[in-house]
Parts: sequence; structure tokens; C-alpha cells
Amino acid sequence: MHTVLRSATREVVIGGDQPFCLIGERLNPTGRKIFAEQLRRGDLSRIAVDVEEQVAAGATMLDVNMGIPLVDEAELLATAVTMVQDLTDLPLVIDSSVVEALEAGLAVYRGKALVNSVTGERERLDAILPIVARHGAAVIALPNEEDEIPDEPERRLEITRKIVDIAVGEYGIPVEDIVIDPLAMPVGADTSLVRTTLRTIELIHDELGLNMTLGASNVSFGMPGRAALGAGFLAMAMHAGLTSAIMDVRSPQIVEAVKAADLLLGNDDWGAAWIARFRAAQAAAGT
Amino acid sequence: MHTVLRSATREVVIGGDQPFCLIGERLNPTGRKIFAEQLRRGDLSRIAVDVEEQVAAGATMLDVNMGIPLVDEAELLATAVTMVQDLTDLPLVIDSSVVEALEAGLAVYRGKALVNSVTGERERLDAILPIVARHGAAVIALPNEEDEIPDEPERRLEITRKIVDIAVGEYGIPVEDIVIDPLAMPVGADTSLVRTTLRTIELIHDELGLNMTLGASNVSFGMPGRAALGAGFLAMAMHAGLTSAIMDVRSPQIVEAVKAADLLLGNDDWGAAWIARFRAAQAAAGT
Repeated sequence: MHTVLRSATREVVIGGDQPFCLIGERLNPTGRKIFAEQLRRGDLSRIAVDVEEQVAAGATMLDVNMGIPLVDEAELLATAVTMVQDLTDLPLVIDSSVVEALEAGLAVYRGKALVNSVTGERERLDAILPIVARHGAAVIALPNEEDEIPDEPERRLEITRKIVDIAVGEYGIPVEDIVIDPLAMPVGADTSLVRTTLRTIELIHDELGLNMTLGASNVSFGMPGRAALGAGFLAMAMHAGLTSAIMDVRSPQIVEAVKAADLLLGNDDWGAAWIARFRAAQAAAGT
Repeated sequence: MHTVLRSATREVVIGGDQPFCLIGERLNPTGRKIFAEQLRRGDLSRIAVDVEEQVAAGATMLDVNMGIPLVDEAELLATAVTMVQDLTDLPLVIDSSVVEALEAGLAVYRGKALVNSVTGERERLDAILPIVARHGAAVIALPNEEDEIPDEPERRLEITRKIVDIAVGEYGIPVEDIVIDPLAMPVGADTSLVRTTLRTIELIHDELGLNMTLGASNVSFGMPGRAALGAGFLAMAMHAGLTSAIMDVRSPQIVEAVKAADLLLGNDDWGAAWIARFRAAQAAAGT
């Protein structure tokens, strides 16, 4: 199954037979006090730095989230989305928990965006899916409800089925434009949680064949050696069927792990991309 | 399922609920011209260096192979196995394609060794399995026959079943003492081969629940960025069900990937081993 996203001039395809889609997570004030304070003051200059860094690091798409308490998030997100489109031609993920902000971001977006996100509650589906459908966007759906994250992969699959039924059946959204977030939790909280996520990915891959993305940095939260944990997790998740992640693309070790997994899983024909990376690194080192 | 190996004083358990078993590959003259020449001259001094390096790097077991053309391999392997046992208490893998060498290695081994290896041909099974049974050893079995390596995972499973039937039914070897090598091939030769290996691992895990090991370095043979490929491959293979590998334990990146996967798959309770690694690294760095 192929999920196609577009900016004004560039197209990205997410799919199991495609190189992994790396979505830069950095344009998000959550956990970034200085950035949040700058945005609150109306200083958006840091956005240009974050865009440039993530593009240089090899991002396929960029997530844009402007969630700051007591700020008009709709206005700020629209401004940020407009600004980012002027800085890069990568397609964007419009990310907010506020319906009006998603609507404002989509209104200024030129192309086909990925909306992040909707959950399984009826009222959220009825609030967000019409906007997604009207803008011809794709949408990330999380299989949880009422702030309850199911422990059982089978329950996550069940909620996924419900979301797909409503999105396709009631709102006419093409099934390939639904990208599931199988919910990645910190391994430091409970070492069994990663297996739950991996099993959820396998189930959704095997039963529904949908594309999937997740917040990869969650997994290593609070642990030392985050890059190695992120690298290992993404290799396993890609093997299970994950086709995209919202992630720290600025980590060379994590990006390298994704590119290695692309090759190992047969999505880098002749190893051309892998070999080109090493040629470029050698050329840069002057050897 | 638990495969238990022993030296005179130490026990190692291979299993899906255990930390991954890292078998050092280095005591092997294949592809090591200088080492091969030293061994041919009767100079075994390099063995002590290779043992020390691999023990320091965190090997769980050591593979010992003394295959050199035109040398009395049985005598050399017995000498090497005796020597290695004096240098480390790690359990050993006795590795040869020559039946007499396996027998000679086992004869001097104190403990329960892992024999590497037998293949699916009737005459090989009838030559090697009696020796394994007589010494109470465990054995690595490769699901190929007559120098033909099956392309189909299902065919590899079929040969595995045949080997298990003969080993258990005719030679009385406990099923948990059969460790399957699902056959890892270079991704550089054909980018679809890794998926074949991963699928074979899943099938053998799901259908038979046997422990597995493989030559992990094969996968990255001939490619740049071998450590990253080895790291990514082992993470995926461990997720598929691999419980051991004969590998380059001297690569910090590959060992780190294995330890990360142990944590992510729930085989490092509370992350204690992972956190201890970073504490030790910090202490070594004097921070």
C-alpha cells in the first residue's frame, strides 16, 4: 500500500517496498524551553535553523507542531507552516491536538499533507476526519481511546479497524491515506512495552497492510545510550512492518541504522544508496 | 527452549528468554593469512591474543576452528582446544568440517561443547551425530544438503525437521541440544537474501521453537559500513527469533546493538545490564 504526500513541488511515497520515510521531529516546542519561549515572544527564527539541520540530515518529511500553552496555536501553526514551506520543499506533517490548529495549518498548506493525529474516540473522529477529507490530506491515527492506551496488541488492532471503517465508510478517505501510529512507549517504564509495540506493528501489517509511523524517540526516553536504542528499535520495527517514523533525524547513528535496514530488507536496490553514503563520506573526508 | 553449554567451571544458557549468546568468531584461520601461516608453522601464540580480546569484548562463548589445507586438523584442533581452555572458562564451539577433527576436539574438551556443524545429508548426519551423542554435546545443524542452499525458507524448515527427526529419533540427542543455523548470506550478492534468512528464523522459531545461531559477518561481506549492517541485521534477526550468533565481538557497535536488542526485547530486566554498561563507560572515562 502506498501513501502519497506532496509539497507544492515534491512527492513522497510511504510504503513497505519504499525506502523508510524519515519524518523530522524537531519543529516542536515540547520539551524545548528556549524554543517555546522564543515562539511565545513571536520569535520564529529558530525554525529556519531546525529546518536546515533536518533537511541536511536526510529527512524525508518534517513534522510541524506549535503546541504551547496560552498561545493562539492555530495562528502560530499557520504562520510556521507558511514559513517552513518557504524554506524547504519537503512535504509536511501538520501536528496538533487542537482541531482549529489542524484546520488553520491545512488551510495554508500547498500540497497533500499528513495530519497528526486522530484517536479512536467518536467525537475526535467526527471532528478531525471531515477536515482531512475536505483538504484531501492523509491522516495519522492512534489506536487508543479516552486516554486509555490498550496493553493488548489485539485491542489496538480492533480500534484500528474501527477507525478505518469510519474514515473510509463515513468520510470517504482512501484507505491508503490512513497511517497508523502503533504507539511506542518508553522501554525504561516497562521492558515489555517494546514487544507490545512490535507485535502491534506485525498485526496491523499482516491483517490490514496499512502504512505506519510512530514517535521513535519515546522508546529510549529516560535511558542512557538513546541513539543505540533508537537504532536497534527502528531496525526491529522496520522488520515488523513499520514504514515511517517521527524521529531525531539529527542522530547519524539512527539515520544510518534506518539506511542499513532499508538495504537489509531489500528496499535499496543493488545497495546503491548505501554505497553512495560511504562514497560521499569518503569524499567529504578527502580520502 | 534452553540449550545449556558448559566449560569445566562455567555454564551458558541459550534461549529466547535469555540475553543473546555472543560467540566469538575470531579463532579461525579462514581469511587470515598471517594467522594461518603461524598455525602451519606450529606457532599458536596468536591464539592467546584472540582469546583475550574476545573475552574482554564480552563474548559468551568462543568458536575454535583450525581448518588449514594440508595440516593435520585433528591434532591442531585438539591442541588449540586444550590451550583455549587454559586461557578462559568460556564454553567452546568445536568447529570443523572434518569428522576426525570434531572427534579430537571433543575428546580433549572438559564440559559440554557445541559442535559446529552438521548438514542435512544422510552420510553427514550418520557420521557426526553419533559423536555428538557419545560426548553429550550440543550440535549446530545447517538446513542445506548436497552443497545446495535452498532459496525457500519453507524448504529450509523442511530439512530442519528431517535433521531433528533423525537426531532425536535415531541418535537420542535431546531436541534442546540442536541449534539451527538458518544460513545467512551476503546482502551484497542479492538484496533479497536477508529477508530469506529472517523468514527462515521466524518459521523455525514459530514451528519448532529451536535455538538458532548463524555467521553474522557473512551478511555484510563485501560491503562498506559492515558494523552498521551487522548491528541492524542482528537487531532484526533477534526480533525474528535468533538466540545466538557467531560474530565479530570485537566490534563495539555490533555488541552494543545486541545489548540494546536484549533490553528492547525484554531480556534485560529493569535495563540493569544496559545501564551498567554506561556506568562502566563513564567510570572508565573518569567522568
